[in-house]
Amino acid sequence: METVSRQSSAEFHSLLQEQENCNNSEVQTRSRELKMKRSLVGSTNVFYSNRHACQTMGMASSHSRITSHQNVTPSFYIMFKIPKHQVAGHQAIDGNLGPLVEDSGRFYKPLQDDERGTTELAFYQSFSSKLPHHIRGFFPVFYGTQLVEASDGSGLRPHLVLQDITSNHLNPSILDVKIGSRTWYPEASEDYIQKALEGDRLTTTVTLGFRISGVQIYESKESGYWKPARKEVKSFSADDVRLVLRKFVSSNLEPEPDCCFASTTYGGRSGILEQLLELKAWFEDQTVYHFHSCSLLLLIDKESVLNGRTVPFVEVKLIDFAHTVEAEGVIDHNFLGGLCSFIKFVSEVLTDSKVSTIEASFN
Amino acid sequence: METVSRQSSAEFHSLLQEQENCNNSEVQTRSRELKMKRSLVGSTNVFYSNRHACQTMGMASSHSRITSHQNVTPSFYIMFKIPKHQVAGHQAIDGNLGPLVEDSGRFYKPLQDDERGTTELAFYQSFSSKLPHHIRGFFPVFYGTQLVEASDGSGLRPHLVLQDITSNHLNPSILDVKIGSRTWYPEASEDYIQKALEGDRLTTTVTLGFRISGVQIYESKESGYWKPARKEVKSFSADDVRLVLRKFVSSNLEPEPDCCFASTTYGGRSGILEQLLELKAWFEDQTVYHFHSCSLLLLIDKESVLNGRTVPFVEVKLIDFAHTVEAEGVIDHNFLGGLCSFIKFVSEVLTDSKVSTIEASFN
Repeated sequence: METVSRQSSAEFHSLLQEQENCNNSEVQTRSRELKMKRSLVGSTNVFYSNRHACQTMGMASSHSRITSHQNVTPSFYIMFKIPKHQVAGHQAIDGNLGPLVEDSGRFYKPLQDDERGTTELAFYQSFSSKLPHHIRGFFPVFYGTQLVEASDGSGLRPHLVLQDITSNHLNPSILDVKIGSRTWYPEASEDYIQKALEGDRLTTTVTLGFRISGVQIYESKESGYWKPARKEVKSFSADDVRLVLRKFVSSNLEPEPDCCFASTTYGGRSGILEQLLELKAWFEDQTVYHFHSCSLLLLIDKESVLNGRTVPFVEVKLIDFAHTVEAEGVIDHNFLGGLCSFIKFVSEVLTDSKVSTIEASFN
Repeated sequence: METVSRQSSAEFHSLLQEQENCNNSEVQTRSRELKMKRSLVGSTNVFYSNRHACQTMGMASSHSRITSHQNVTPSFYIMFKIPKHQVAGHQAIDGNLGPLVEDSGRFYKPLQDDERGTTELAFYQSFSSKLPHHIRGFFPVFYGTQLVEASDGSGLRPHLVLQDITSNHLNPSILDVKIGSRTWYPEASEDYIQKALEGDRLTTTVTLGFRISGVQIYESKESGYWKPARKEVKSFSADDVRLVLRKFVSSNLEPEPDCCFASTTYGGRSGILEQLLELKAWFEDQTVYHFHSCSLLLLIDKESVLNGRTVPFVEVKLIDFAHTVEAEGVIDHNFLGGLCSFIKFVSEVLTDSKVSTIEASFN
């Protein structure tokens, strides 16, 4: 992996609008004096600036790399909000450090200070040139990095600027699944290994080869979302996972999930299962990366049918690369095994729902 | 899993021929007074007797189960030998407990006293009824159990009577590969887990998803076998594994393995790769067993070509089920991931050898 060091250099000041509550209580905007910094990342010069600066530098493309070194003067300021649909990971609430979003559909993930930040940045800076074209769509678009006022009030911090997968969806159902029966890896510190191993044994990671890290399922205007607390999610059993996967594609969640969207979201030519199988085929062969502690993010917009789509909108993305390392000529058997297990769970829901449909048509 | 208890009951005596050296120094026969016992295994009555008794009881079929309870008088005695071609596991030498073979092509594996013996016996007693027909051939034929004088001189001990995969092969090349990136499992004792985890981290188990447990490669009449010591095998790196997989299908091992048998042993319609892919397809779907610490045994008889075969004889078997547990509706993602990794290693040798052949034909 590339080693990355950080040095701040020129600083200039500007002002963001006063923090205020927006259209719901979860959404906040931040405003304070903003110090814009230019930093050096390894041998590559990176500018942390506002959106206009990024675009000026040609970083709007998902596959561009940061190569130039320029002084950029911001021309307008960005309104940051706390993501409305985040289901796992650190959250930018109660003064904690977490990701932010803005209206144009970008997601600002704070770069962690330690090796995790280094690793994730190196991944995003290199992945597009290392992956085949048909696989790149499984990763969020990367727009570069930017200095943003951190959500914990600690001042300016470099953030990864990524595609906000949930933007343009009013009520998305989201499932975050950490793939692999092992979240630790030989190169990690002994402390990390022991902590990760403990977590793997306490969740379904070891037994199922994956664990659900977070979930929100939109039911209806009246019922809103089903979003179990993190503690509950952490204690999911194999049967809980099966139930969640059924609820995820249902319109009515209680008393029994109806799985009415199973065939159009899990199934179908562009459905989740087909996409997972495409990903699996790549993992059987790829010896570029080992994705430890990486998540599969599934998004379903059931309401997109109301907007004229014949089938609900679905999205499959890989996220979280703070522990992604080079594969050194070996396939990522840990991710692959877990992915195959998850595929089996999904395909069972699909098969069962087909059987139910056939039975219902005969009754 | 079935719980198994062992109780000896009636005993009767007979005599085996005096121990003597046979046609080479590695082969020994055992002779001493033999106590034949009848024992009860769980609710199933099992006879430990000689070969004739097994056949009388209808246990010659690979898929028969021990269901009757009879007194059987032996009609002749079996000549046990130490296996000539064992590459891994406990060996019946220097007064240690290990497996024995006899000339008719049967392999006698001592049942371990603890849960391991119970688990392996339960597996062999049930696997044929739980597996699809096309998969059964990947397992050694099971002939039942038999009381045999243990090789460590501790007296009579129940042994699993299995197909001796190496019989009928004068100079087989054998590779024993323990599949999976984790040899421990949640149901095991904490002691076992810690010990297994340590072994997994010290070998290629974690990094490659498998480790070579033993290997012998026949080179020629003059050179004999290449059979690295266990300590050396244990310290194999990823590159060592690649080299072993090339040597395994070579006629000349030094200075560079020629891989002259790659296309006819790894490749081909009935070759090792095709068989592994068949096994993989089953593992993507099967939710019957989780095979922890189980080995894939590959056998190649290069000399079979001399006996009229157009391609060398190859065999792919799964062995060692002392830690095989019920799958509880989840695929064996640990075995599957490791198997996919091993398949990738094998296919790379095959691809490289094809490239070499094409290059050679142009020079």
